Amino acid sequence: MNRRMVIFTLGQMVLLEAVLLLLPILVSALYGEACIKALALTAGGCVLAGALLMLAGRTKNRVIYAKEGFLIVSLAWISLSALGALPFFISGEIPNYIDAFFETVSGFTTTGASILTNLEKMSRGLLFWRSFTHWVGGMGVLVFIMAIVPNVSERSIHIIRAEMPGPIVGKLVPRVKDTAKILYLIYIGLTVLEIILLVAGKMPLYDSIVHTFGTAGTGGFGIKGDSIASYSPYLQWVITVFMLLFGINFNVFYLLLARRFRAAAKSTEVWTYLAIVGVSVAAIAVNIRHMYATIAETVRLSAFQVASIITTTGYSTCDFNLWPGFSKSVLLVLMFIGACAGSTGGGLKGSRLMILVKMGRNELRHLIHPRSVTTVKLEGKQLDAATLHNVANYFILYMLAFFSLFLAVSLDRFDIETDFSAVAACFNNIGPGFGAVGPAASYAAYSPLSKIVLSLAMLLGRLEIFPVILMFVPSTWTKK
Amino acid sequence: MNRRMVIFTLGQMVLLEAVLLLLPILVSALYGEACIKALALTAGGCVLAGALLMLAGRTKNRVIYAKEGFLIVSLAWISLSALGALPFFISGEIPNYIDAFFETVSGFTTTGASILTNLEKMSRGLLFWRSFTHWVGGMGVLVFIMAIVPNVSERSIHIIRAEMPGPIVGKLVPRVKDTAKILYLIYIGLTVLEIILLVAGKMPLYDSIVHTFGTAGTGGFGIKGDSIASYSPYLQWVITVFMLLFGINFNVFYLLLARRFRAAAKSTEVWTYLAIVGVSVAAIAVNIRHMYATIAETVRLSAFQVASIITTTGYSTCDFNLWPGFSKSVLLVLMFIGACAGSTGGGLKGSRLMILVKMGRNELRHLIHPRSVTTVKLEGKQLDAATLHNVANYFILYMLAFFSLFLAVSLDRFDIETDFSAVAACFNNIGPGFGAVGPAASYAAYSPLSKIVLSLAMLLGRLEIFPVILMFVPSTWTKK
Repeated sequence: MNRRMVIFTLGQMVLLEAVLLLLPILVSALYGEACIKALALTAGGCVLAGALLMLAGRTKNRVIYAKEGFLIVSLAWISLSALGALPFFISGEIPNYIDAFFETVSGFTTTGASILTNLEKMSRGLLFWRSFTHWVGGMGVLVFIMAIVPNVSERSIHIIRAEMPGPIVGKLVPRVKDTAKILYLIYIGLTVLEIILLVAGKMPLYDSIVHTFGTAGTGGFGIKGDSIASYSPYLQWVITVFMLLFGINFNVFYLLLARRFRAAAKSTEVWTYLAIVGVSVAAIAVNIRHMYATIAETVRLSAFQVASIITTTGYSTCDFNLWPGFSKSVLLVLMFIGACAGSTGGGLKGSRLMILVKMGRNELRHLIHPRSVTTVKLEGKQLDAATLHNVANYFILYMLAFFSLFLAVSLDRFDIETDFSAVAACFNNIGPGFGAVGPAASYAAYSPLSKIVLSLAMLLGRLEIFPVILMFVPSTWTKK
Repeated sequence: MNRRMVIFTLGQMVLLEAVLLLLPILVSALYGEACIKALALTAGGCVLAGALLMLAGRTKNRVIYAKEGFLIVSLAWISLSALGALPFFISGEIPNYIDAFFETVSGFTTTGASILTNLEKMSRGLLFWRSFTHWVGGMGVLVFIMAIVPNVSERSIHIIRAEMPGPIVGKLVPRVKDTAKILYLIYIGLTVLEIILLVAGKMPLYDSIVHTFGTAGTGGFGIKGDSIASYSPYLQWVITVFMLLFGINFNVFYLLLARRFRAAAKSTEVWTYLAIVGVSVAAIAVNIRHMYATIAETVRLSAFQVASIITTTGYSTCDFNLWPGFSKSVLLVLMFIGACAGSTGGGLKGSRLMILVKMGRNELRHLIHPRSVTTVKLEGKQLDAATLHNVANYFILYMLAFFSLFLAVSLDRFDIETDFSAVAACFNNIGPGFGAVGPAASYAAYSPLSKIVLSLAMLLGRLEIFPVILMFVPSTWTKK
């Protein structure tokens, strides 16, 4: 265990948070808001803490292994959330620190579950910071560090592996640093494009930027009580399309940019993802047709909600908690499916689900033809036994974690539908659930204990379980 | 594919059903009920159909493989249910055939989910038949056939494998026929013991026999609207203990009978099962303490409901749908855990869950120490890769099947809690769920389509998926 390197990297992260805070400080200065003090105070604290950590962690041995990678990632995400919650708390806009922590974890993990009951009362500077955490968390803070800091060790692929979602994470180009850069360039490009299209549709610039942050990170924090419902159909469609785009494996965008169209078109994960979206939109549209005046409105609402849930964004344009049981069940299943691997979305991920389905099918085939040799292919490549093993075990851990979290949250005073969907929505980084945590409600009524459990659920979901659990294993902390 | 042997064995099964029907015929004769006609007519039909099938299937080639074993099992269970539903339908006591089929599948699969809304109006002969299907289905009809029919091929272990629940099914003694006999003797012994203890507690003989059938098969069909609630605390405790006994791996009883006490005491699955029961009873008792007058009553209600759900029986002594969220969530999780492998209960089964938990733990260990070799042991024996593979893939199929069934049932007009728990209760062969299918309600209000889907869920759960799905694979039916 290279402890010094862990501490040093943590220091870098905390320092980075100070830099990130400059943006909301600028915004609150523009609007002349009082929250600027809390933001500046936090930024100052981050500079101090970050510098001290980097000093304490000076070392010539910059080698890190998988274990350090996982540990850095989970410690970084918790520290960023704990510090990032301070502006809300210091300014008094979220008077309870646990609430502020929940809100910030929800931001960085791109969940979008909120304890705020009156968004319109919040300052613009803090709402900006809240949404900006989505954007930062979407692509991964550590990937960002690697893209900008010089002298990144090739060993850092462990960090990308720990922070990027999905069963198989590879390098796009030989050098880790270049991979991180390319990913961030695509991310920034799509972000700018969405802002332009929203402003072109007459959404105010501030709203456009904030909602783009929420879309890009597949987060879902908005600035209005009814989320996106009060914006024009054009704006809702733009957000629908961009939610779907940010749910696509970024490798595909890279292939498109590299003009390798044929390779891009071969991505079975993306086609499966789009097929699931298409079928779900159609099924829900038929199911809710009687509730709305026109077919256009029905399809728009269905498409928006489906895109929002499968990409684990969590925006809404209507209270889908009032939809009939079948539509809600489709959404509940989409919560677990999630977006593509290598995107900013959460959930089980398309490719992992495809592997699971193929493994199930193989098991049946093997029972019928016991001597048949069955292999699992993904994107034309045969997967090795270790990957299959890893995906199956991940699924087992995922389910065990889900039911443990569900039991813990059900100690609260809500009904099964609320608790089950709250855990599903937090663990899969979606945001709103059903019942008392539906899109028209908030997580405010949960007890402090449940809020901590749900924060843990968000971190477990975003970091894909392993890094978070590693922190609780005593042997992680012993020197070797 | 040895088609003739499949048809011949099916014929044996149908003939056996005629023999089984003699018992309810006797009961309805004793009480002088009109339903005797419907029962006799069905029995006559079974004799005819069974004889014809056996004639059509005459063959000298008695060799069967896994494929035939699976196919025989699923066809047998469907035929027995389709024919066993006739007395309810012909007598007019269940006027709709789909309802009668649902009720009979629920009986044979030992689920105990009912569409009947007024049990007190039913004839005693048909209620007896209804509960008797639990007893027959509990140990497996084909295992029974093997215990009584001469000249059983040693190949028939495939049938035991397909019909007995759990990940690892072995022979207790070298000969398959003897294994089947021992299992049935233990089953009959425990059944007689429970009847004696219930009668000793002043439960009427008829009630005692019927409730023992429901307990032994871990089924849950009763004869009163409030299930077991109106019986004395002594009787409720007897049923609690016997539900738990029938949820224990029968191998352990065999070891006890063979005076191999030390080997029996080593069963980690049974200890885990008892530990889960103990913790759940305590957790629920604390949670519901305020609802009842005395501690004795609280513990009795908690223990009864926990035993009923974890063994997948489904009897109740109170409307647990009115319990607080946490208690309901504990019960919901117990629904998926289920009883021990090699018992009459359903669910994922204790040993399978233990293997899954160990695989998850190994995966974490492997991430921390990548070069460590990790193996999974159960009952002191190291499991081979094929078994682990099989358990992981079963879990994947189990979850995929669960969510598919849930989506199909949610097309009906109920809420998520009702649909989710209805599928959980049918797929895991429990019976009552929550909400509109709670212990005080019934499945009557579901549409015919949902009733068929739920019947399929019960069969998939009882036969552990593979045999049922095999029927839908075209290549199963082609000659080779």
